[in-house]
Amino acid sequence: MRYVKGHGTENDFVLLPDLDGSLTLSDDVVRRICDRRAGLGADGILRVVRTAAVPDADGDAEWFMDYRNADGSIAEMCGNGVRVYARYLVSAGLAPAGHLRLATRGGVREVDVAATGDVAVDMGPARLDEAVDIDGVMATFVDMGNPHAVVPVPSVDALGALDPMRKDLNVEYVEDVGDAHIRMRVHERGVGETRSCGTGACAAVVATSLRRGTARGTAYAVDVPGGRLTVTWREDDTVLLSGPAVLVASGELCAEWLGES
Amino acid sequence: MRYVKGHGTENDFVLLPDLDGSLTLSDDVVRRICDRRAGLGADGILRVVRTAAVPDADGDAEWFMDYRNADGSIAEMCGNGVRVYARYLVSAGLAPAGHLRLATRGGVREVDVAATGDVAVDMGPARLDEAVDIDGVMATFVDMGNPHAVVPVPSVDALGALDPMRKDLNVEYVEDVGDAHIRMRVHERGVGETRSCGTGACAAVVATSLRRGTARGTAYAVDVPGGRLTVTWREDDTVLLSGPAVLVASGELCAEWLGES
Repeated sequence: MRYVKGHGTENDFVLLPDLDGSLTLSDDVVRRICDRRAGLGADGILRVVRTAAVPDADGDAEWFMDYRNADGSIAEMCGNGVRVYARYLVSAGLAPAGHLRLATRGGVREVDVAATGDVAVDMGPARLDEAVDIDGVMATFVDMGNPHAVVPVPSVDALGALDPMRKDLNVEYVEDVGDAHIRMRVHERGVGETRSCGTGACAAVVATSLRRGTARGTAYAVDVPGGRLTVTWREDDTVLLSGPAVLVASGELCAEWLGES
Repeated sequence: MRYVKGHGTENDFVLLPDLDGSLTLSDDVVRRICDRRAGLGADGILRVVRTAAVPDADGDAEWFMDYRNADGSIAEMCGNGVRVYARYLVSAGLAPAGHLRLATRGGVREVDVAATGDVAVDMGPARLDEAVDIDGVMATFVDMGNPHAVVPVPSVDALGALDPMRKDLNVEYVEDVGDAHIRMRVHERGVGETRSCGTGACAAVVATSLRRGTARGTAYAVDVPGGRLTVTWREDDTVLLSGPAVLVASGELCAEWLGES
């Protein structure tokens, strides 16, 4: 089984090129590959497959991103994952650089892949709802397909370990650095603190723009522990997420090791 | 740069085959490869090189294990690493299965590689010294080239997070399971709790044999969080460590990614 390892702001993935959909990927194999000691190690698997080979997929885009979490469960979308996936397609010669449409379980995503450097993805519309209480602070609630609560703080470094009472949503702690520049730490539901979160960066910029009265269309720099993302909340309410997508290595899983599953 | 990823009881390594010693391996490249999010991820690097190509190495053995810790520092020996290294040599056809002599910075090691399955290594003599105080308990001190303190406990599961006051030595907590069968958790100096520790398993069996009056030459099963090791303290004071050595994947580091260093 061939693979490629890559990451976007240190959210890391094993890509499995399975262009014509011949691979059967059990939960157990996903877990074994993603195991950081006994396997290759990753936050998730991105199976690269033609949409035509996926029975229920939206046939409008050539490629389908079959995303699996490290525990084997299925996920709809992943902002960092879709960028790494797109970088792979271009790097492998499966798609030209420039504009791409990618099918995901969360719908088709519009992606722009620079010849080198950053990859940008339209993360869809942000939806606001009533503020939520996060440990005594009223936090801005932003739905980016998944729920986020954004808490402004004087310093993200001063926070210590993140452990919000509310575990049913993603919590972003945001520090103002300058005009259109924030720092962010994130506690993801079901995971804990992570090095980066694409939808979290989007939610953080939406909430910060509202709080500070930033004009729509402003490109915000968002520094997360794993690197820098750029987020733009546009006039039509959609959010553009841009950032690095890096391919680290490629190779083959040992047949003998795979056979043990 | 070609690589192989493998592990021994979940102590994991990136092997870099550099048979004729042409590779310059900077600390920075070691750190980047071992980074578990932005790189491949491993506890350390094993550079596979002919002894003839290593200026200061003992020329008595054909192969030299150049072991680097994940932080780029140099280490003398690693009981799990030497087993994975030997498995690679046999798997790649660079050495026949059976008896091997491997040069390390800690001296030449005698290794036995089964055609499939376990790899055994002579870890050299155990040296005993005065008992040490580990959080109020007198622990057996065993030097296996590095210092260990072994603490018998009723249950390793009941311990919670390991955090001994003494951080200048490796601390093994050992639970008796049956005749010649123990369970062990280990806190490694400079690292914290790990899934396995080869020298720690050796020290644990030496201390347990003394405590229980076990005959020399008895093969002990040692269950660590990452799997099972077998340890035999022999008449001549040397300790034989045996256990699985698994190759997971092989491939190539992306030239573009490497070039960023």
